[in-house]
Amino acid sequence: VATNLALSFAEKGFIIHQVYSRNIKNAKALGRKINAPFTDIISEIDKAANLYIISIADNAASDIVSQLDAGNSLVVHTSGSLDINKLNKFPNHGVFYPLQTFSKNKPVALNDIPILIEANTDKNTEILKQFAAFFTSKVHVMSSEQRRDTHLAAVFANNFTNHMYNIAERILKRSDISFDLLIPLINETARKVNDEIPCHVQTGPAVRIDKEIINKHLIMLADLPDYKKIYKQMTNSINKESKLIKI
Amino acid sequence: VATNLALSFAEKGFIIHQVYSRNIKNAKALGRKINAPFTDIISEIDKAANLYIISIADNAASDIVSQLDAGNSLVVHTSGSLDINKLNKFPNHGVFYPLQTFSKNKPVALNDIPILIEANTDKNTEILKQFAAFFTSKVHVMSSEQRRDTHLAAVFANNFTNHMYNIAERILKRSDISFDLLIPLINETARKVNDEIPCHVQTGPAVRIDKEIINKHLIMLADLPDYKKIYKQMTNSINKESKLIKI
Repeated sequence: VATNLALSFAEKGFIIHQVYSRNIKNAKALGRKINAPFTDIISEIDKAANLYIISIADNAASDIVSQLDAGNSLVVHTSGSLDINKLNKFPNHGVFYPLQTFSKNKPVALNDIPILIEANTDKNTEILKQFAAFFTSKVHVMSSEQRRDTHLAAVFANNFTNHMYNIAERILKRSDISFDLLIPLINETARKVNDEIPCHVQTGPAVRIDKEIINKHLIMLADLPDYKKIYKQMTNSINKESKLIKI
Repeated sequence: VATNLALSFAEKGFIIHQVYSRNIKNAKALGRKINAPFTDIISEIDKAANLYIISIADNAASDIVSQLDAGNSLVVHTSGSLDINKLNKFPNHGVFYPLQTFSKNKPVALNDIPILIEANTDKNTEILKQFAAFFTSKVHVMSSEQRRDTHLAAVFANNFTNHMYNIAERILKRSDISFDLLIPLINETARKVNDEIPCHVQTGPAVRIDKEIINKHLIMLADLPDYKKIYKQMTNSINKESKLIKI
């Protein structure tokens, strides 16, 4: 997230005063990418910035918060699951959460990505909304609770979906079939829910209650017990829900 | 599948002699769409066709096969999971399986969709390959076993993925958040695996073994026990696999 945000900020002409990381290698790598000074010593963090962005694993945030001296400047974190009140120490604080999946090596443009904003005062909310609007048209003000639900939903829609792709890849591998074969199907599956809610476009043996195919599939998964369990549970869940919809 | 194929065939200028369905309403609806005669009486099926396409639920196929008189014409089914030998009765037979998710009301073009071919003779394989090549550049000859594995993989990559989207939608709903918010993330999740295999782009609390967030999420799912179980199982499976990769 840090790398992606820094690159997007620099691209829009914002000046990044300094990069801090507990790991000097990471600080250096990002500092060089955006031509900014870098440090791994928290007391050396520049005190003249307008905005401090804490982009770090949730469980490491408390440490940074307790040590950071940001004066009256605005301090934000970029986490989906961390409550805004973790930043209560700072008189001006907020949250700037881009709802997207990032990889360090493949920067993703922020265009059209929702950015979820929260702040401790109306003025700070306004500042963050205006800042976010430089990058995307999709700026949403949300409470910590809503953001937490959004993050949980994103774990299903992104992390677990990717694991489904992974299981598919492994099943194909044992028959020496290339994963590329599934790409048009994967793309269409995603495209469909751009227009319709998922329960309206559910297909497959589970929603049809096609026991013959389901049993065949379970036998085929006998040597992959974890995937077999996942298959059963997903099938039951789809099945249950499609019945609820019909009622 | 029947509707989608019929529309694609008609579009390319192939003449569809007749539409048969056990349900006259379905026969009529499709017949009218493509300007073809239709019937629900199996003995009335035209005997002069070059190609008979059986596109039906697997468990209904045997019935049709036993009743259909196709002479020496080529007969194919369009199922991912049905063995080719179910058509042994016909001297010329094969499989024409388009690997895509179809909905009756939203026809999908076959362009770029893989079509998996199998036939009982080299000559029939060649006929089906040439026929499939009218619709897509991705024609693959595959055994029934390979096609069955591909179909199982597709259940994970399509049906179960869509259910993940569905769960995400339901979690958002309880906080009155629009599902649209997740669309850029869903699109990017699919796009990523166009370039890299899924296990290389897995992100999230499960692969990071971020117990703090995982426990928070499980608490948030207390009132959705089915989703909680799915969350646990997916997290364990991702976790296990990421360890296997590291070793």
